[in-house]
Amino acid sequence: MSGTDSSKNLMTDGPAIILVDPQLGQNIGMVARAMLNCGLEQLRLVRPRDGWPNSAAESAASGADSVLEKTRLFDTTAEAVADLRRVYAATARPRGMITPVVTPRQAAAELRTALATGTRAGVIFGPERSGLVNDDIALADAVLSVPLNPAFASLNLAQAVFVVGYEWLIAGSGTPARELSLGATRPATKAELVGLFERLEAALDARGFLYPVEKRPVMVRNLRNLFQRAELSGQEVRTLHGIVTALTARRGRDGGSDEDA
Amino acid sequence: MSGTDSSKNLMTDGPAIILVDPQLGQNIGMVARAMLNCGLEQLRLVRPRDGWPNSAAESAASGADSVLEKTRLFDTTAEAVADLRRVYAATARPRGMITPVVTPRQAAAELRTALATGTRAGVIFGPERSGLVNDDIALADAVLSVPLNPAFASLNLAQAVFVVGYEWLIAGSGTPARELSLGATRPATKAELVGLFERLEAALDARGFLYPVEKRPVMVRNLRNLFQRAELSGQEVRTLHGIVTALTARRGRDGGSDEDA
Repeated sequence: MSGTDSSKNLMTDGPAIILVDPQLGQNIGMVARAMLNCGLEQLRLVRPRDGWPNSAAESAASGADSVLEKTRLFDTTAEAVADLRRVYAATARPRGMITPVVTPRQAAAELRTALATGTRAGVIFGPERSGLVNDDIALADAVLSVPLNPAFASLNLAQAVFVVGYEWLIAGSGTPARELSLGATRPATKAELVGLFERLEAALDARGFLYPVEKRPVMVRNLRNLFQRAELSGQEVRTLHGIVTALTARRGRDGGSDEDA
Repeated sequence: MSGTDSSKNLMTDGPAIILVDPQLGQNIGMVARAMLNCGLEQLRLVRPRDGWPNSAAESAASGADSVLEKTRLFDTTAEAVADLRRVYAATARPRGMITPVVTPRQAAAELRTALATGTRAGVIFGPERSGLVNDDIALADAVLSVPLNPAFASLNLAQAVFVVGYEWLIAGSGTPARELSLGATRPATKAELVGLFERLEAALDARGFLYPVEKRPVMVRNLRNLFQRAELSGQEVRTLHGIVTALTARRGRDGGSDEDA
């Protein structure tokens, strides 16, 4: 809603990711890659130990150059978040501080709401080993804490950024939870399915398979259920017709010599 | 439900993670770390390029030794999944195959249901660059596809495993989406809050701040809302009483010399 380019991008592209005192360039590069995987492009660095730009970051970014090129440098965490109105501190549950603690999923929902109404937002991450200091956490509206195996909770920096980005992306994604990927084909119509069923059942009746007669209805239903579950395509129905034809044909047409061996 | 140790662990610890033709030991180690972060411990390798055990894997695992020690080796993907009854293939949406495609979140829900009823399950991942071949995908019940930025969807192997493990962990975790971390303190009672409010309002009345009188009710409500939103602890209420005392005291007690400067 407000005017500058960077605020427009923040609202379009999601929250800013702010790395405080990051140590290894490789980790910064992996963060950039994880961000771009999730459609995030606003990276801010506070006092990167090995300077900036950094060739190790470039090679680890695996092509996420657009993120590295737009990365902005700051001297303090306060300056890096100065233009934001909602900030999360990604860290373990803090001791001795009174602060709201949210899951990444909850943060993503809150960030979607904030950014949709023009509230610029970001998430700050501490250095690899030690994490955020309390003075930086106190700049945030809430702590963002990833629920992990309590016996092994130390998360790689890029993984931590990735969880935040992933939840952000999913919160705005309309991807169906489960669907059938059909490739170039289309689902069979019910008429095609019933045609196949009746063809198969007639062939089985002719060979005395659907016997005894009082069991025939349940056997037919079970067979139909089986093929219904497979969610057949039109092409697959034609293939199964071909299989019924092949199996009911007289043997030896193309030299099936080891049958009845 | 069935008898062996490994099946018991699978049901306790979550799905098996199967890496087919993994190349770099470092990536195997990062996968082990990501798995243990999420409480997963059953790692299976099919034809690891650089052999097994692998020292690069050990250093990249950052302490996830328990996963590496239990890792099992297989010659084929079919052997690696032979004891499982539900298998997902982690890969991009396949072309030219008709198969169900699920999100990691949906897979996690399905895996929770399967494992709770004793159905052993696993997720297979292809090699770093090329991903799973179609013959391996055809061993799976469904494709697990991570919805990502379509313009930059190439996911690091450890990130892909981490997403699956993270969704698995969250699906069984009772972590509240948002809560207040209170440290060693406790939330203030309403009596403590009202005591503070009345104290503050009396002090403001005495100085003519809540004026004009017809605006007093809305000013009082706004102030009370402000402090309610802060979800104060009992200790913080006492601190705020101290602040009111300090601000209403006569000046000069401890040398506040620059006031009214």
